[in-house]
Amino acid sequence: MNATKTAAPAKVTTPTDRTIQIERIFNAPRERVWRAYTDPKLLAQWWGRGNQLDVERYEFERGGHWRFVEHSGGETHGFEGRFREITPMERIAMTFEWDGMPGYPAVSTASFEDLGDGRTKMISTMQFYTPEERDGMLKSEMEGGMNQSYVALDLLLAKMS
Amino acid sequence: MNATKTAAPAKVTTPTDRTIQIERIFNAPRERVWRAYTDPKLLAQWWGRGNQLDVERYEFERGGHWRFVEHSGGETHGFEGRFREITPMERIAMTFEWDGMPGYPAVSTASFEDLGDGRTKMISTMQFYTPEERDGMLKSEMEGGMNQSYVALDLLLAKMS
Repeated sequence: MNATKTAAPAKVTTPTDRTIQIERIFNAPRERVWRAYTDPKLLAQWWGRGNQLDVERYEFERGGHWRFVEHSGGETHGFEGRFREITPMERIAMTFEWDGMPGYPAVSTASFEDLGDGRTKMISTMQFYTPEERDGMLKSEMEGGMNQSYVALDLLLAKMS
Repeated sequence: MNATKTAAPAKVTTPTDRTIQIERIFNAPRERVWRAYTDPKLLAQWWGRGNQLDVERYEFERGGHWRFVEHSGGETHGFEGRFREITPMERIAMTFEWDGMPGYPAVSTASFEDLGDGRTKMISTMQFYTPEERDGMLKSEMEGGMNQSYVALDLLLAKMS
């Protein structure tokens, strides 16, 4: 089974007017997906969708800060936030803020479910202060960029062991 | 007129289930209040209510970060955030996060109105993601601490020229 050919795009829904939910299945065991989500060296290989990603800060503990800078088409885009909750193998909650809209953080969560057949379902949510901020994110290139990141993650997971 | 004797406590209201609004009148012209709110050397003299306050970071521009550490009763309390909007003399909007609840930022604004008689009305709002987070702030020692800060600010404003 070749994950890079069979992976379905992420399913994006809007459970409330201030939230976005994303579901994606990865063809890899949960422990491997968890490592790819939490090891900065591995994150740098997929989060930027093939673009150079500098992990400037990655303090993976409650209260720790993170900051990524993606280099894309001659531009740099900074993203940062702070970890709210970390439950190993199960769940990460953190704030997420793009330098282009400073002071507008969202709360981003990712939960990982072992599907029992070597695959892992990831469910992510984003919570915003207002419906307008949520809609702004939906109208951005978020969904396309996110799916590119997940394809890069499929490729990385297939290489990991 | 002695501001330290006549200042009324801040008026705290809850316009929505996710917001807090604070009104306070200062016996000083708007330009002076603005300086006390935006010059880190002056902030350090009132924000900590008499406690030592280390201004670790204060990048007073849109997108800039701020971080204060207050020393109180042998403990240290960190607060930080990022500036969302700065309109000179009129309005500051920024995120506000306490180290004790990392990843739970609120959006804090302060607007300054020249009352035309040498006094300035400050209206501050705090917006939270959820009613529960808002209620947590209301149940904390926020109001008492805030009023102590404003009394310290009254004293500072009276000394400034």
